[in-house]
Amino acid sequence: MAEHDLPRRGLVLAAAALGAGGAGYPPPSPIDSGSVEGGRIQFPDWRAPADPPSGALPQPRPPGERIGFAIIGLGRIALEEVLPAFAECKEARPVALVSGSPEKARLAAAQYGIPAEAVLGYAELERLRDRPEVQAVYIALPNAMHREFTERAAAIGKHVLCEKPMANSLADCRAMTEACARAGVRLMVAYRSQYQPHHRAAIALIRGGELGRLRFIEASNTQANGPGPQWRYSKQMAGGGALPDIGLYCLNATRYLTGEEPVEGFATIHNPSGDPRYAEVEESMAFQLRFPSGVLANCLTSYGAYQNRMLRLHFERGSIEMPHAFDYQGQRLVVQRRVGQVAAEEERIVKPKNQFAQEIDHFAGCVRAGRQPHTPGEEGVQDQALMEALYRSAAEGRPVRMEPPPGPTRGPDPA
Amino acid sequence: MAEHDLPRRGLVLAAAALGAGGAGYPPPSPIDSGSVEGGRIQFPDWRAPADPPSGALPQPRPPGERIGFAIIGLGRIALEEVLPAFAECKEARPVALVSGSPEKARLAAAQYGIPAEAVLGYAELERLRDRPEVQAVYIALPNAMHREFTERAAAIGKHVLCEKPMANSLADCRAMTEACARAGVRLMVAYRSQYQPHHRAAIALIRGGELGRLRFIEASNTQANGPGPQWRYSKQMAGGGALPDIGLYCLNATRYLTGEEPVEGFATIHNPSGDPRYAEVEESMAFQLRFPSGVLANCLTSYGAYQNRMLRLHFERGSIEMPHAFDYQGQRLVVQRRVGQVAAEEERIVKPKNQFAQEIDHFAGCVRAGRQPHTPGEEGVQDQALMEALYRSAAEGRPVRMEPPPGPTRGPDPA
Repeated sequence: MAEHDLPRRGLVLAAAALGAGGAGYPPPSPIDSGSVEGGRIQFPDWRAPADPPSGALPQPRPPGERIGFAIIGLGRIALEEVLPAFAECKEARPVALVSGSPEKARLAAAQYGIPAEAVLGYAELERLRDRPEVQAVYIALPNAMHREFTERAAAIGKHVLCEKPMANSLADCRAMTEACARAGVRLMVAYRSQYQPHHRAAIALIRGGELGRLRFIEASNTQANGPGPQWRYSKQMAGGGALPDIGLYCLNATRYLTGEEPVEGFATIHNPSGDPRYAEVEESMAFQLRFPSGVLANCLTSYGAYQNRMLRLHFERGSIEMPHAFDYQGQRLVVQRRVGQVAAEEERIVKPKNQFAQEIDHFAGCVRAGRQPHTPGEEGVQDQALMEALYRSAAEGRPVRMEPPPGPTRGPDPA
Repeated sequence: MAEHDLPRRGLVLAAAALGAGGAGYPPPSPIDSGSVEGGRIQFPDWRAPADPPSGALPQPRPPGERIGFAIIGLGRIALEEVLPAFAECKEARPVALVSGSPEKARLAAAQYGIPAEAVLGYAELERLRDRPEVQAVYIALPNAMHREFTERAAAIGKHVLCEKPMANSLADCRAMTEACARAGVRLMVAYRSQYQPHHRAAIALIRGGELGRLRFIEASNTQANGPGPQWRYSKQMAGGGALPDIGLYCLNATRYLTGEEPVEGFATIHNPSGDPRYAEVEESMAFQLRFPSGVLANCLTSYGAYQNRMLRLHFERGSIEMPHAFDYQGQRLVVQRRVGQVAAEEERIVKPKNQFAQEIDHFAGCVRAGRQPHTPGEEGVQDQALMEALYRSAAEGRPVRMEPPPGPTRGPDPA
């Protein structure tokens, strides 16, 4: 039956009945219709306790009230992940683009409903000062450009959400946190995994002690990269090779999972000889970290092996496997432990959420509330210090001591 | 219908018909009946090429013609794995027991059909000289006793299949190979994984190049050990802790999978403070190995984390996951690679075989044919040298160079 064939009178009656117990239908129960309380639509539980609860309603903020972002840089990550993710945001919206490619920027602006006059070139960034709907920027530029654009955005009073790695040197990272502090704007590094539901569930499981103490971590992040030239193969632009680009996910995960800072690290680099891609940056690194509690972590990252992003956590009384841990999607969380007389393997079905949308909404909430983000600049500074220590270890062929950060590196947990 | 109710005449006719085309049934085709060729029963393929072939028939050697083994030591591995495995052997049979526990030995002998007069105490081992049906011994004693019993068995002309680790020192390992060479008997170290079908399939896949070059290995072997006293917690009896007992599987696997010898290693030990079990031996070790081709291996072993025995191989164009890689059973082999436009995950169903039976039959075949085993004493000597290097690395807190063995460490591949 095509839509225009629907008996209109029946539809109208049904709608009325559902709303107010109109003719022909009984009035809905509060369990069915829900209610509005404190500006939020709410439904009471309708399922039995045997089933897991279905969770809270999304409660998106009306579009006009959301934190407006300018996206700076229209490379793959901006166009493949960040801009599409705004459709799943509830606290943020894209309102301006800054790009070095005018034609690409105009098309992307049209695609994402951004007005043409809010499309700027890199040199025009400061004109965002006059656009009050832009409260924050999302920096999705090559690593070497993070510092400059963070400082310029801070200088015009815009809050900064910056892609990882934060920058290419400790000096640059520190300059960024100082610039944002001076300007009184929030700075967050886009450590998306820390906002990803499976990783949040793993952290909760570790802190809750369900499987006993966490003892060991194995983390890998590998992919097979194509031929150059690509900015990823430039030491000047990328700061390094596989480590800052994808190995950083392993490094960062060992820290937020343990809740500790490593005290010693050892790294081995391998570069295939004669491959021009790896004349400046490393193809592969295996590294080991030791934490104060005794946790040991074995990590592996490479641009030269088939994509593989696995996280494995070894506890006293169980293990957790997280296949696709660092992928954009497809995370899983499998718990292995003893149940009665047998070894059990149990997948915990965690509701997937777009991790880019999660991190953008988190930052928008922090900007609105004047709150420190969960992954502020300090988190990026510490990772940069650790990466520099790992490079030193690889260069010197010996383990290196790692210094604790001067203070906490993370703000309050995301909701 | 109970068995005694079967119409006897029908059964007899059916049997005759299947054998020779008797009354009532058509004669069988050669595809159905098979044939005897060269002393072996054979069936031609009956399935279409779309299905994998069902494989060759077992062809067990008549019991009286098999190589007879004396099992020395009746601890858990002998009674849980080795003696039961003989039921699945086709080339070997258990014909004597040597134990320090006469009551246990008498009962086990009865259970496995071994005559009471073939049950000896440790001090009586030399009486095996007078039992010609005993051609080989399977040494399943605590590590510290391997050297003495290998030398005593060799001295009375018995071939030696010795559990891993080979012994507790390089000097002991070398003395064992020399004793067996002097006596003209074969010596094999029971590296069961090298005879296990999934590991053989992984080796074949690596050598065949299906996924490109092997780049990295991650291997873990952890388990949660109970309270002492146990010989495993005695440095004198065990030689070490998790490394020689279970970490050795990871170490040995990196070597047979790559077909290379590591040139550098780095190890970190962790012992929980105040735990009397780890006063003499290590609880946990994380170690990294570098191979000449550039393969890097991250390995992890512990007595203090839930059982987990995973092997992951990273190739240029795919990965292999082998859950339960070092368990007694339950191995799997999962290949991950690109297929068309998608990432594929494909389990290769490898027919499981009892890996103890496989290794025992391999050694029996070598004894019969006068052939070098696939894992002779030299294989154990090299692993002992590498383990001593790893302990040195952990003690000195720095990577150590590893020396290549003086010659090949492995004999011809198992069938």
